[in-house]
Amino acid sequence: MSESVAVIGAGLVGCLTAIALAKRDYDVTLFEYRPDPRLSTTEDRNLRSINLAISARGITSLEFIDKQISERVLRDIIPMHGRMIHDRDGNQEAQDYGLFGECINSIDRGLLNNNLLDEVDKLTNVKTEFLHKLSQIKFAAAGTGKQVCVFATNLTTKNYEFDFVVGCDGAYSTTRSQIQHNTRMDYSQEYVDCCYIELYIPPAAETNREFNGPFAISPNHLHIWPRHNFMLIALANRDGSFTSTFFGPWALLESLDSRAKIEEFLRHNFSDALKLIGTEQALNAFESNPRGALMCVECKPYHLNRGQAIIIGDAAHSMVPFYGQGMNCGFEDVKVLMQLLDKHQGDRSAAFGEYSEKRHTDLVSIIELAKNNYKEMSHSVTSKLYLMRKKLDTLLGRLLKDNWIPLYTMVSFKAEIPYHKAILKEQRQKKILVYLQAVILAFTSVGAFGIYKALRRTLKNYK
Amino acid sequence: MSESVAVIGAGLVGCLTAIALAKRDYDVTLFEYRPDPRLSTTEDRNLRSINLAISARGITSLEFIDKQISERVLRDIIPMHGRMIHDRDGNQEAQDYGLFGECINSIDRGLLNNNLLDEVDKLTNVKTEFLHKLSQIKFAAAGTGKQVCVFATNLTTKNYEFDFVVGCDGAYSTTRSQIQHNTRMDYSQEYVDCCYIELYIPPAAETNREFNGPFAISPNHLHIWPRHNFMLIALANRDGSFTSTFFGPWALLESLDSRAKIEEFLRHNFSDALKLIGTEQALNAFESNPRGALMCVECKPYHLNRGQAIIIGDAAHSMVPFYGQGMNCGFEDVKVLMQLLDKHQGDRSAAFGEYSEKRHTDLVSIIELAKNNYKEMSHSVTSKLYLMRKKLDTLLGRLLKDNWIPLYTMVSFKAEIPYHKAILKEQRQKKILVYLQAVILAFTSVGAFGIYKALRRTLKNYK
Repeated sequence: MSESVAVIGAGLVGCLTAIALAKRDYDVTLFEYRPDPRLSTTEDRNLRSINLAISARGITSLEFIDKQISERVLRDIIPMHGRMIHDRDGNQEAQDYGLFGECINSIDRGLLNNNLLDEVDKLTNVKTEFLHKLSQIKFAAAGTGKQVCVFATNLTTKNYEFDFVVGCDGAYSTTRSQIQHNTRMDYSQEYVDCCYIELYIPPAAETNREFNGPFAISPNHLHIWPRHNFMLIALANRDGSFTSTFFGPWALLESLDSRAKIEEFLRHNFSDALKLIGTEQALNAFESNPRGALMCVECKPYHLNRGQAIIIGDAAHSMVPFYGQGMNCGFEDVKVLMQLLDKHQGDRSAAFGEYSEKRHTDLVSIIELAKNNYKEMSHSVTSKLYLMRKKLDTLLGRLLKDNWIPLYTMVSFKAEIPYHKAILKEQRQKKILVYLQAVILAFTSVGAFGIYKALRRTLKNYK
Repeated sequence: MSESVAVIGAGLVGCLTAIALAKRDYDVTLFEYRPDPRLSTTEDRNLRSINLAISARGITSLEFIDKQISERVLRDIIPMHGRMIHDRDGNQEAQDYGLFGECINSIDRGLLNNNLLDEVDKLTNVKTEFLHKLSQIKFAAAGTGKQVCVFATNLTTKNYEFDFVVGCDGAYSTTRSQIQHNTRMDYSQEYVDCCYIELYIPPAAETNREFNGPFAISPNHLHIWPRHNFMLIALANRDGSFTSTFFGPWALLESLDSRAKIEEFLRHNFSDALKLIGTEQALNAFESNPRGALMCVECKPYHLNRGQAIIIGDAAHSMVPFYGQGMNCGFEDVKVLMQLLDKHQGDRSAAFGEYSEKRHTDLVSIIELAKNNYKEMSHSVTSKLYLMRKKLDTLLGRLLKDNWIPLYTMVSFKAEIPYHKAILKEQRQKKILVYLQAVILAFTSVGAFGIYKALRRTLKNYK
């Protein structure tokens, strides 16, 4: 008889985990505390869902689990080749992401989730239970019996028994806290001083279409209105609309305590975006939409001994959204975990142990990178020195191929480079880059020959 | 009418808080989930209570709250002038703590707690409720109403309403987690790889008394058996017994998986202590006594806005016991909080806000110091270089008075120096000390005159 597993949380990572485990012949039950999102008839958009960008790690992980499923669930993605920077006067300037035209891809979180749930439904060995909120896990004391999961449902509580539990229940994970009661888990949560508010840019009117579809601005860029310590971003949806998000310090939001102040603030900083969103709508959103907090979570280990439980995705490593890696990293978790289960031929104790040991460095690396990228997105992208260094970085990347890979490329387009190795390589490259930049700035007066000599000398030393 | 406050936890910090608030005319209810410890008739010693050392910060804080109460609750302390280092052959060597005979003081945690509870009982505006386990706090949404505390009692739950709540409920604080649900609290918990087991050294037989009382070893020292990555310590109790604690890495404990292995381990490392404890008793303790984990907790902020709740003591900053500052720091929390309430004339919102802002640096400082002191206690105290530096440190402290104060003196005997300032001063002193030591070692061959010149030059530069 096959072993039974509870997957807690039917979000993106939970759905993919259920699919991956079902394909490995486990007897899977997928629990979700919300109702089935596919049944919601009204237009109740979740107003706290930052739009998603799926890139190489997410896609290769989906493909590793199932190539056909990957193709089906990703049919609606919109490629984004780079950033589009909007200045205060409404001027736009594109900055490519890749060296050779690589792109990341915008996708609506709700849509992707529904697609994944449809795939889950096709599998005979996955049961899905909505409106089941996990309240407790009673782990078998000796480590040999079943784990009893207690769920709060509509009016009562229900108990279910499983051989093991996989927690994909997000930043405020109950699975995690239940594991914490049974093992010495290091844990930290840190709020960054950044609040977010979701806004909505509707599809363009018929008369105003310069893009391939009803888009008011380029659908193939991630739009950024960088204003130093705050910013606005926008990602395209298939229907021509854009999901836009404002990020800024809490104190700033609290200082905008009247409709007049909000309007002045928006007009001064985001005049072109205000026209796209609609003044009335933008003011309403700033006044009434929920204000999200951004929290980083790190912990270790991720599992209980004896293969009783493990957490992956946001439950194990919640990060800020500024590198677009949260979901990608979560999907990669599923891939890594499955590879280890395959390697250890289903010996969960060994697989979970190795997962905690080996995955940790990569997870803390991407959490750190994501935190640091806020400054890059909201501020550096407008700095001349930054842009010069970025051009140099791109140039070296194109010339030296695999011997020089810009950090963004490693993180977003090179799934085969683990996060922590990307950071190590970047540290080496950055030293050279800063030096090179200084040399170039110094030799500018000496003219092209000086630059050429300096470049040649440095490149010769670098292998 | 006076404002009502729930103090959660009737441990050391909770009792002192109840007393301090009652003296400020608040209407106090003190809740404790355990039964009244004074009613326990059997000899059910708590086997996980590291003995306590109270020093200047603890004593001055008690005195700040109430000088008479301080005298009464501390009547049973035993002064400890220094460490007594035991080597493998049973040789003992004393190392003074202070420069001028200052001492820290051993006290039984249970005894001190009972004394404080007796003082609580004398106050008319404190009610005490035992066997009340906090399960939830419903904070008034608008911040203006009462906070509803839900307690699980014997068979049912009970609700109580208060103007505000002070959480003194220890490292696994429920008050803290309830505050976390209502504010963006940074939080981290980290386990150190150290397990502890409590042991018991009985009073000496009548025929074997070289000390003033039935003590088998000096009552006026903190005994340490330092063995590099593990150690044993012992603190005297009034009745002639010692509370002894073993500290060591978890893997070491797990490797001692038979009675024979434990016995060999103890005989090899702690032969003299084994005679004091009794071989049979020591083996039983290693096999059956609970094994404690050591966890560091840091968080910020400590309060909810609008003066609804605050956490102090271990609930806010759990630290490892190696600097003997856990309780001292907790008592100081009470003092600092009361000073701020006095300063802001009962405006809790202002007082709590300032507490979170100002107290944090000191709390993370002492958490860090305590963590680092494990190495000093278990290892450095046997190093010749360490001892030389310590002698030099003491010498400079005696010569330069307030211009040079060894770190241990600042932390344990100078309550007027905040923890974080002690660290800053120590960093400055340590640089000089390391330099001086190098100079002395280098000049040893040149003879006394070289040392004298080097010393004079350095001291002249230092003010």
